[in-house]
Amino acid sequence: MQLLRNARFVTMNEESGGYDLIEQGALVIEDGRIAWVGSESDLPTRYGDATHRDLGGRLVTPGLIDCHTHIVFGGDRAREFEMRLEGASYEEIARAGGGILSSVRATREADEETLLARALPRVDTLLAEGVTTLEIKSGYGLDIDSELKMLRVARRIGQVRKVTVRTTWLAAHALPPEYKDNRAGYIREVVIAGMDRGHAEGLIDAVDGFCEGIAFSREEMAGIFDHAAGLGLPVKLHAEQLSDLGGAAMAAQHGALSADHLEYLGQDGVDAMAAAGTVAVLLPGAFYTLRETQYPPMQALRAAGVPIALATDCNPGTSPLTSLLLTMNMGATLFRMTPAECLAGVTCHAARALGLADRGRLAPGMRADLAVWDIQHPAELTYRIGFNPLHARIVGGDHV
Amino acid sequence: MQLLRNARFVTMNEESGGYDLIEQGALVIEDGRIAWVGSESDLPTRYGDATHRDLGGRLVTPGLIDCHTHIVFGGDRAREFEMRLEGASYEEIARAGGGILSSVRATREADEETLLARALPRVDTLLAEGVTTLEIKSGYGLDIDSELKMLRVARRIGQVRKVTVRTTWLAAHALPPEYKDNRAGYIREVVIAGMDRGHAEGLIDAVDGFCEGIAFSREEMAGIFDHAAGLGLPVKLHAEQLSDLGGAAMAAQHGALSADHLEYLGQDGVDAMAAAGTVAVLLPGAFYTLRETQYPPMQALRAAGVPIALATDCNPGTSPLTSLLLTMNMGATLFRMTPAECLAGVTCHAARALGLADRGRLAPGMRADLAVWDIQHPAELTYRIGFNPLHARIVGGDHV
Ligand SMILES: [Zn+2]
Ligand SMILES: [Zn+2]
Repeated sequence: MQLLRNARFVTMNEESGGYDLIEQGALVIEDGRIAWVGSESDLPTRYGDATHRDLGGRLVTPGLIDCHTHIVFGGDRAREFEMRLEGASYEEIARAGGGILSSVRATREADEETLLARALPRVDTLLAEGVTTLEIKSGYGLDIDSELKMLRVARRIGQVRKVTVRTTWLAAHALPPEYKDNRAGYIREVVIAGMDRGHAEGLIDAVDGFCEGIAFSREEMAGIFDHAAGLGLPVKLHAEQLSDLGGAAMAAQHGALSADHLEYLGQDGVDAMAAAGTVAVLLPGAFYTLRETQYPPMQALRAAGVPIALATDCNPGTSPLTSLLLTMNMGATLFRMTPAECLAGVTCHAARALGLADRGRLAPGMRADLAVWDIQHPAELTYRIGFNPLHARIVGGDHV
Repeated sequence: MQLLRNARFVTMNEESGGYDLIEQGALVIEDGRIAWVGSESDLPTRYGDATHRDLGGRLVTPGLIDCHTHIVFGGDRAREFEMRLEGASYEEIARAGGGILSSVRATREADEETLLARALPRVDTLLAEGVTTLEIKSGYGLDIDSELKMLRVARRIGQVRKVTVRTTWLAAHALPPEYKDNRAGYIREVVIAGMDRGHAEGLIDAVDGFCEGIAFSREEMAGIFDHAAGLGLPVKLHAEQLSDLGGAAMAAQHGALSADHLEYLGQDGVDAMAAAGTVAVLLPGAFYTLRETQYPPMQALRAAGVPIALATDCNPGTSPLTSLLLTMNMGATLFRMTPAECLAGVTCHAARALGLADRGRLAPGMRADLAVWDIQHPAELTYRIGFNPLHARIVGGDHV
């Protein structure tokens, strides 16, 4: 039994919309879970003989949760980024081997060890900012073996690092060249068949897809979601990033945990998400990198009471971003979210986007996943740009 | 004598506009300066007995230079940032004690030790990304003693950390309340008189001002620059950030080292800067934070051959940014600069913006200020967001 004292706890009650700050607080950890949290003066005497740890008045939040990443991938797209800025056309970049298929090629070629070694520095950068739960998608393999290889690497990340990894099956990310004239075949032979295999191997926590004119249609995704439902797997969707295809509403009707991106989401989509309790996961890193000008419908989401999460979308093409703190600043600066909304977006609402009811808030019974910060006010996490005030990370009660 | 070998050197020739990459290179350091750099196979035999250091094939650039910061200040503006996002008006924020005058009040109240202790974590964040030279401005004191206090703290930063600090007198940053009806009095009694004192104490490397409708006019700044010229101090100017007052052209006519911000710069300003060799210092962090939509005239600056530098503008109000790597990414993403331009912007062109001819490139005679990176291609420095691949910093030949 462990007692954290002389600290300020930001408990993040999902309903209040604020920080719910406990000044001069104490928190008791028992068996990796929070047993008690409150004012030090109210500490029940039964916890008096726990091992004390004085946090020096520091601020403690729930451990951060990055609920949308593509952080496992082969290769690098820096040179493609440079070519584009030097004025190369998309055709020239494609001819030079660029674009998403360059990541697919490199991911297929890489073995598990290589993918793991390349992903870890990116993961470590997130953990250094207080991340304790991390979602990782497949989607650069686009054949069954390569997609499963990505998820095996994701699971290994959760073993070699102190972080909970949640895996997502995203074979419906793009159509690989070998299936370019056979969409139905790809969905049947890779997306569905691979989902069955991955599920049987325990590699899949959720199923995702990219619903867009350049990727998969709403109807195609609905079929994939029906199959996921048959396996008891929760679903989520990349939706309304570049156009409004009604993907979010379809996902909500399938009880989706989240719909992600959402720049072009209309009121019908907002209403469907609110009715289903589907979380809106906003990805300002992609918005920034693509220099988008269409904003997600913030006021409509707020008015409907849709929970809003924020994530890095870490990926080599449209968001080579490995800072969740910077993502919070972008949520505020670009999308005008308040710092309290940004913090909820990477704690309680991000947990919900992953279907995890045991984290994202500081309350009895929750996992003892905490971030301890050298700051005075929680707004500093969102306000500063390119600064990391993390003092310590506590994962399942262990100080790491 | 020290020999760095098995490395790839990005030498940054100012004329070429490219990286000037030496594969399988070597670099010799003698008395804190670069004695030789080139292909390992061409290494003169006289350097054969230098202490060897194998850099494992890593990439080496000149140490980075942040040529425009306000990194010394009192207080914090996180709560003000939050109030604005919560919908508070500027009047409400001012009533609550916000705005630049809150930084002035806090800076006046803080002693040197406090200002130093508060600035060092920000400085350390920059150094951790390979910064070896840092410019620091006064401008939150707005009385002689407080302005000089800021510059003393800046000088101390250069003593307690392995970094060259260049100080800039920016008393002409804003008009303090006690002079609000006496602009001429403030310029005479504080800006000019303080410049004399600071110069006599060796605290001032350059003189700067904020030329804008809400600050000082072009004519007022011209008078201040004339006084600086009498003391032999170089000048630079915050110009054309919010409107075109002709500040950059005036500064160029005074032989300014740089004109900074420049979103509203017109062709006449570009031409004057090109004629005078004045560097354009772009500050994308402020552009991003203020959600500006007016872009600096990139094509005109390139066409005229004006050297373009990038800096954090680290300050508590409009750019609470402490990452020069992120600044490079913003230069590319927001201003469409190429990665090679971004790297020149924080090395050779930034050196020129500070009037320093002995750094910013890897060539014989230059200071041995180097950054060693765990990357394959220099474009990665600009491409990645929120990631720091620094392996080591070398300052004046010392590995730190
Ligand atoms: Zn994504
Ligand atoms: Zn400035």
